[in-house]
Amino acid sequence: MASKAFAIVAGVGPGTGAACARRFAKAYPVVLMARNPDNYEGLVQEINKSGGKAIGISTDVSSVESVDAAFAKIKAEYKDAACAAAVFNASGRFARGPLLEMKVEDFVGSWDVSCKGALIFAQHALPLLLKHADDSSAKHPPTLIFTGATASVKANAQMSGFACAKFALRALSTSIAKEFAPKGVHVAHAVIDGVIDIPATKNWLKDQPHEAKIGADDIAESYWNLHTQSKRCFTNEIDIRPMYEKW
Amino acid sequence: MASKAFAIVAGVGPGTGAACARRFAKAYPVVLMARNPDNYEGLVQEINKSGGKAIGISTDVSSVESVDAAFAKIKAEYKDAACAAAVFNASGRFARGPLLEMKVEDFVGSWDVSCKGALIFAQHALPLLLKHADDSSAKHPPTLIFTGATASVKANAQMSGFACAKFALRALSTSIAKEFAPKGVHVAHAVIDGVIDIPATKNWLKDQPHEAKIGADDIAESYWNLHTQSKRCFTNEIDIRPMYEKW
Amino acid sequence: MASKAFAIVAGVGPGTGAACARRFAKAYPVVLMARNPDNYEGLVQEINKSGGKAIGISTDVSSVESVDAAFAKIKAEYKDAACAAAVFNASGRFARGPLLEMKVEDFVGSWDVSCKGALIFAQHALPLLLKHADDSSAKHPPTLIFTGATASVKANAQMSGFACAKFALRALSTSIAKEFAPKGVHVAHAVIDGVIDIPATKNWLKDQPHEAKIGADDIAESYWNLHTQSKRCFTNEIDIRPMYEKW
Amino acid sequence: MASKAFAIVAGVGPGTGAACARRFAKAYPVVLMARNPDNYEGLVQEINKSGGKAIGISTDVSSVESVDAAFAKIKAEYKDAACAAAVFNASGRFARGPLLEMKVEDFVGSWDVSCKGALIFAQHALPLLLKHADDSSAKHPPTLIFTGATASVKANAQMSGFACAKFALRALSTSIAKEFAPKGVHVAHAVIDGVIDIPATKNWLKDQPHEAKIGADDIAESYWNLHTQSKRCFTNEIDIRPMYEKW
Repeated sequence: MASKAFAIVAGVGPGTGAACARRFAKAYPVVLMARNPDNYEGLVQEINKSGGKAIGISTDVSSVESVDAAFAKIKAEYKDAACAAAVFNASGRFARGPLLEMKVEDFVGSWDVSCKGALIFAQHALPLLLKHADDSSAKHPPTLIFTGATASVKANAQMSGFACAKFALRALSTSIAKEFAPKGVHVAHAVIDGVIDIPATKNWLKDQPHEAKIGADDIAESYWNLHTQSKRCFTNEIDIRPMYEKW
Repeated sequence: MASKAFAIVAGVGPGTGAACARRFAKAYPVVLMARNPDNYEGLVQEINKSGGKAIGISTDVSSVESVDAAFAKIKAEYKDAACAAAVFNASGRFARGPLLEMKVEDFVGSWDVSCKGALIFAQHALPLLLKHADDSSAKHPPTLIFTGATASVKANAQMSGFACAKFALRALSTSIAKEFAPKGVHVAHAVIDGVIDIPATKNWLKDQPHEAKIGADDIAESYWNLHTQSKRCFTNEIDIRPMYEKW
Repeated sequence: MASKAFAIVAGVGPGTGAACARRFAKAYPVVLMARNPDNYEGLVQEINKSGGKAIGISTDVSSVESVDAAFAKIKAEYKDAACAAAVFNASGRFARGPLLEMKVEDFVGSWDVSCKGALIFAQHALPLLLKHADDSSAKHPPTLIFTGATASVKANAQMSGFACAKFALRALSTSIAKEFAPKGVHVAHAVIDGVIDIPATKNWLKDQPHEAKIGADDIAESYWNLHTQSKRCFTNEIDIRPMYEKW
Repeated sequence: MASKAFAIVAGVGPGTGAACARRFAKAYPVVLMARNPDNYEGLVQEINKSGGKAIGISTDVSSVESVDAAFAKIKAEYKDAACAAAVFNASGRFARGPLLEMKVEDFVGSWDVSCKGALIFAQHALPLLLKHADDSSAKHPPTLIFTGATASVKANAQMSGFACAKFALRALSTSIAKEFAPKGVHVAHAVIDGVIDIPATKNWLKDQPHEAKIGADDIAESYWNLHTQSKRCFTNEIDIRPMYEKW
């Protein structure tokens, strides 16, 4: 039954992840993943109270064991259900600074979450997405979305750790898209090019208009629109920026 | 009044242009442009009969005089109305073949429509789009969309005329996007990477599944989704391909 | 006889063109093309006096007739000789400014030289380059080089005319490279990303070190190095910038 | 003293690495690094016998300790000498195959060498390259070159491990180039797009002409040409393919 399909959002924080959870929860039960339960607990309650259904699972996407355990919980909760949409929004440490001062462990740490974590997550989510692709009653093709950044396509000075991880993530997204599109899974990568309006960026661009930052809800809406594309119209990459962004 | 805003589709044929006209006609009165009235007359009737409002104007987008005349007609029809959305979907002769056999006039002809035509069209549409940007009651930011192709990003052997024109169009779209986004106009470019399912391609990919071709209606829906993005979330480029496309 | 092979530089001004003429004149008789003979006359004398061989031909690369006439002169001068290297360095008017103020004729004029001119030039040079490819005594594969700019890969606001022409030129170069590499012609595109140190830019970046500008001679040396690459190692695109360039 | 400057080639195997070692040994004492001494021992002897100077150091570039030890040996050998050129040519396991069968350790292993190894190597080589940048008697700017592949810019299906590592390496190269160019270090990335002619590829493209494969010596010559570029003309990326390559 298509009605049993659920959505997963990995990397739930106060911005894109939370907004995606809210948006996809309008259509599907949602699974929220974050390392720190503080990041999803309030949101899980909020969604469950407002008529949706959500569960949260503390997950370290860079750990195979942790992701194994998370998907075991998902299967326990949703039994044979398929996955209609999976959003990978996790990001590792923002490794940057002068190259000669970059700690190798920070460089690795950035990649561990942003790229290795994306692989591990994708390997777990894809079988459930493929199940949805086989479901003739599914309303929309199963969708796997990776959140990128300016650094996915632009490697600036002193941004090596972040850029390496994000360039790699983009390659991963494309490679998976090419392998799984013929199997009916829609894979997309979003280049988020600008500052997202979240509590942590409250004081950034302070003297600029409201439209100088990206709205997290607007990203979520764009992700939802990717999800609703038909098998005859897959978009594999979008860029997103606020109207005042210079690029 | 936002209610008076209209949409324009330039380059109406049996595929993307017609589908866009139908899609945007659900929300706005539409202006359909094509050189040959045969390309829009039936569609104008269809839209007007089904509760929408459409007018068709025979236009050669590569001619300043012709576009001047077309926009004079638009102003006569819609008075002070603003333009909510403009889709440039015209394409010149498909100039390709061995380079040494390429006729310079075919090369020029391809660019004349696809790129020079896009400039002329944009110069006429932008003042009307800017007017919509100033309309605080406007539901969505004014949107200018250019239709590209595989050849917008990939210049294959024997495709020089088509690729030169489409690379140039992509540059035009980006340059306009950067200039007009801060003024509130959302400019986007779509890389249509695959065969669109239209009468002329009926016999292409014949032994392949339905999902080997792109649905024109699906493109139109994606364009509509671009139009509905907020000022805090402009997508400036999307790619579109059917699930079975190799890329 | 390979010894009879010559080189052509189209678009000889005080910078890259002149430097290429001098560099290639060390190995080949050279043909210098520019619209205005003032741009090559002194240089022709200089090369001829210093032991090289050069002729200059007043040519408007955007005109088929003019290029026809130029190549007729080349054939009259060099009889059956092949072309070892051809550098297309011509650039049209630097069409830029606010889009709504851009004159269509300036936009066209930019493209007419930079892109249509490149096509016309290539169509004339390629048969002579192919002749060199067939010459087993040729020391280096015949080489066709197109000079691009930052705007070949980056379309900034208010740069539409220049960027459209340069994006198109890059597509042309790639398409020709793919068609003619298997025939033994090496085609390359150079993204010159920075200010070239010529008299006209004397007052630019004035308070910056010498290495803030690109040396025209250095570009010429890089072009020569492209020319000396073997058939087992064709580089189809290089970027060039001075050490202090921000990118 | 510029005469004391040396060159390092990391990732010496039978192809590009060995060819670079031979080429740079014509001008500088060279340090050859490979995990397995079998990969450099014969070559070290060959260079030393033929009038050059070479040492080999068994190094695992993915290990900080191993690279620390290698550079300690270099300093013991070359005392205060600067590094004129460093070529990073190491590549990890060629992780590819269906995504759902990809072992996470293979994915990590590919990246560990190709990207993390490149970071560790660069962090050790850059101080020695900077020393050469300060040497006013240096003939050419110090140069750091990273060897990429088709997968650096194209992420095909079932190539995720290799492509992720190579996309990341390209980002690393660009980020380092932007940070260190203003300090006088020339950083370049080479997209090697085709099969290199080495013993291991002897039976590949067997029925094709000699020019269907890339010559390792030709790559080395191109790297040398990058090294000789002046501070007013840095090329940060080249692509390389044989004349018969389809792309």
